[in-house]
Amino acid sequence: MSSSKAGVPTFDAPELDQVKETLVTACHILDREGITDGYGHVSVRVPGMTAFLTIANVSPGCASVDRLIMLDFDGIYLGGAETPPNEWPIHACILRARPDVMSVCHTHSVWSTLFSVLPIKLRPLHHYGKFLSAEGPPLYEAAGLVRTVERGEALATVLGDGPAVLMRAHGDTVVGNNIEQAVQRTVRLARLGEIAHLALLHGEPRYLTDDELATFSSDERFPARGWEYFVSRLGTRRS
Amino acid sequence: MSSSKAGVPTFDAPELDQVKETLVTACHILDREGITDGYGHVSVRVPGMTAFLTIANVSPGCASVDRLIMLDFDGIYLGGAETPPNEWPIHACILRARPDVMSVCHTHSVWSTLFSVLPIKLRPLHHYGKFLSAEGPPLYEAAGLVRTVERGEALATVLGDGPAVLMRAHGDTVVGNNIEQAVQRTVRLARLGEIAHLALLHGEPRYLTDDELATFSSDERFPARGWEYFVSRLGTRRS
Amino acid sequence: MSSSKAGVPTFDAPELDQVKETLVTACHILDREGITDGYGHVSVRVPGMTAFLTIANVSPGCASVDRLIMLDFDGIYLGGAETPPNEWPIHACILRARPDVMSVCHTHSVWSTLFSVLPIKLRPLHHYGKFLSAEGPPLYEAAGLVRTVERGEALATVLGDGPAVLMRAHGDTVVGNNIEQAVQRTVRLARLGEIAHLALLHGEPRYLTDDELATFSSDERFPARGWEYFVSRLGTRRS
Amino acid sequence: MSSSKAGVPTFDAPELDQVKETLVTACHILDREGITDGYGHVSVRVPGMTAFLTIANVSPGCASVDRLIMLDFDGIYLGGAETPPNEWPIHACILRARPDVMSVCHTHSVWSTLFSVLPIKLRPLHHYGKFLSAEGPPLYEAAGLVRTVERGEALATVLGDGPAVLMRAHGDTVVGNNIEQAVQRTVRLARLGEIAHLALLHGEPRYLTDDELATFSSDERFPARGWEYFVSRLGTRRS
Repeated sequence: MSSSKAGVPTFDAPELDQVKETLVTACHILDREGITDGYGHVSVRVPGMTAFLTIANVSPGCASVDRLIMLDFDGIYLGGAETPPNEWPIHACILRARPDVMSVCHTHSVWSTLFSVLPIKLRPLHHYGKFLSAEGPPLYEAAGLVRTVERGEALATVLGDGPAVLMRAHGDTVVGNNIEQAVQRTVRLARLGEIAHLALLHGEPRYLTDDELATFSSDERFPARGWEYFVSRLGTRRS
Repeated sequence: MSSSKAGVPTFDAPELDQVKETLVTACHILDREGITDGYGHVSVRVPGMTAFLTIANVSPGCASVDRLIMLDFDGIYLGGAETPPNEWPIHACILRARPDVMSVCHTHSVWSTLFSVLPIKLRPLHHYGKFLSAEGPPLYEAAGLVRTVERGEALATVLGDGPAVLMRAHGDTVVGNNIEQAVQRTVRLARLGEIAHLALLHGEPRYLTDDELATFSSDERFPARGWEYFVSRLGTRRS
Repeated sequence: MSSSKAGVPTFDAPELDQVKETLVTACHILDREGITDGYGHVSVRVPGMTAFLTIANVSPGCASVDRLIMLDFDGIYLGGAETPPNEWPIHACILRARPDVMSVCHTHSVWSTLFSVLPIKLRPLHHYGKFLSAEGPPLYEAAGLVRTVERGEALATVLGDGPAVLMRAHGDTVVGNNIEQAVQRTVRLARLGEIAHLALLHGEPRYLTDDELATFSSDERFPARGWEYFVSRLGTRRS
Repeated sequence: MSSSKAGVPTFDAPELDQVKETLVTACHILDREGITDGYGHVSVRVPGMTAFLTIANVSPGCASVDRLIMLDFDGIYLGGAETPPNEWPIHACILRARPDVMSVCHTHSVWSTLFSVLPIKLRPLHHYGKFLSAEGPPLYEAAGLVRTVERGEALATVLGDGPAVLMRAHGDTVVGNNIEQAVQRTVRLARLGEIAHLALLHGEPRYLTDDELATFSSDERFPARGWEYFVSRLGTRRS
């Protein structure tokens, strides 16, 4: 029997098969796109439960369905591979604080990490930043891994109701209303960081205002298009 | 029957088979060379008609013949895959305004996007810029996607009779008298941007004058050489 | 018979089979991760002997078990492929001076080399630097290859009891208590150098204090995780 | 019959088979290592003749034995594929002026091109520059392709008796006493340029003196090592 209560799935419930596959693909995409460095993790809320799925003790690039783990928001083991990632409180605390969020990505991209230690803020100057405000993402100031609920809650507070937070000397955490959106935003935050870095070397660039950012919003007819592209690239590994 | 009028091809007309293949290859080249980021499109004028072929709702790297679409210059659907790209007016308005242009590329290269937000203009300092004037490409200032004919016409006006235009916070649009030339120019504009960026970090570089640019013009005995090279690289995907 | 004395292995001793495989894998990882440039070498102490294994006259990316060599700390040949690397004293002198060290990597990463010629010191501002002190690695000032014991001893003196040393106009040398740790540190030193370079272009970055570095120390439950990731990437060659 | 005179080979002479293979491999290496951009060429002197072999109308990455051409120093066709490269005078004029030179590489590396337009000279600060003097390579100032003997002779004059010359807005030309050396130097000149670029962004770097450069000279026991490495990488294409 695969459900602990009527309609509430256990780790092995068939209704989780599709989301597990998508979660593994998300990990591979972040690896293939050069966002992760062998570390980081993606999570997804388990529908109807105060719990989430993420990868256990494994690099995103090596993720597979049998290396996923289910934890509740207190870090209690609910099934799957047995060793949770060190930083499970990132996911638990944000998913608890943000009912609108379905998926969380935590990665160590060069570009997010770079802006996390600069005296200059990362602000949108390119349409990749259209999911951000003109002020750019806030910074979680504390150095160190997020291995305690106290730190996880502090991170969730800095994130607030926004889409992303930089983490000093460490990387970023990005949320979405599904796995695909969280991944797309994570990639775009990194690409925005790269272009912002390049532009800042030449003087004050032309940033986008909130009004201008809104002009880039598409009608979202094509939500699957970016994901299809990322998946098509998985056949070859990144350099 | 594949022609709507004598000599005027429909989407399925066999005389379009070759140009469709070239259009798909062009999309793959721009992906392989790292010019596109999962978005952007290439178009080609349909001979004898006020219409063009481009890719439908798909990333250039995933383009295939059965995902091409034919539209007229008002965006009316004339055949092929059913969903036009958001920014079809880029192609329609330029092809209407510029009878000499046979093909249009719109992409989001890092380097064009970078110069689109800098206080410094992109000007030729390398022979890649030999298709440009010494002043470099103009800038389309408006932020936002080009999803209306009004915006498409404004873009065409900034392009004027030149080969390329940068688009703020967005990318570039480049034209050619065939698909191969539009692609080659798009790649070269990106490569020029990279070198100009690097050079500008060290002080004022030595730009090329119009007279000097002319000395790099080749006798064009080898138009197929660059294309052959790009095609040879398609077997491996870009990082 | 494969041991010269009771319990002391010769080059062909079966008890060295595993460490030889790991040594070859280490070389391939440093090549795949873009750390080496066709040169450099990894060594490992032979248990119970004043001797070490390294690669002979071959690039790390072309290493194989039959191209390994065993040398003692005076450079005397003890077995395997016949031609030692030019710079064997790097390994011999450090392994002699540092009984705690089991493995030494010498490579030419762009980032270590860069900081070796800058007027600015490489200091940790990212958790990759958590194996370093807040002061960063020392610099071996002498230009030139380390082909003599005199130079090897000078290098070991600059290294002191630390994990890494930069070598001017040349690269770095990094030590570990096993091959995996030496490789992981070598990669992280390069990645730290890259981010430090990028950050320094924007003004004084926020460096990490020794206390902050300590907060990134993991509980080391997952020592094999990074290595598993590196191995998974060997199937494709670096760009 | 494959020799025009006793001991003087024609294009099809079997004694040229090996050098043709090496010439093709050299072209592929320069492509794989990211030195060329679809253009450029490598040449080798034909022993006993005032003639050379190079690639005809083809990108280095697409070179093959049946696309080689033999020309004399006046550009007269002596065999092979029929269309010479536009810039054959680079090879002819240098080989005529420099009897010590057996092979010439002309490429468009980003890094050589960059320094060709900067107000700062490229000077050795890394052991890659050990084949250069502390002053670095001279600059051929004229913009434009080298399609005439007049330009070729001017280029040879700037090269003088040195190993390399930068060409403004264009690239570089590098010579060697065999194909392998010319290729190795070409790659190292590009890599040196990359590191010099990075270093110059942080203030005046520590350059190497001529005495220091000499300390990096190896005993050249391993001339085939770098070449073996480059060849091992040909199986995968560059990004």
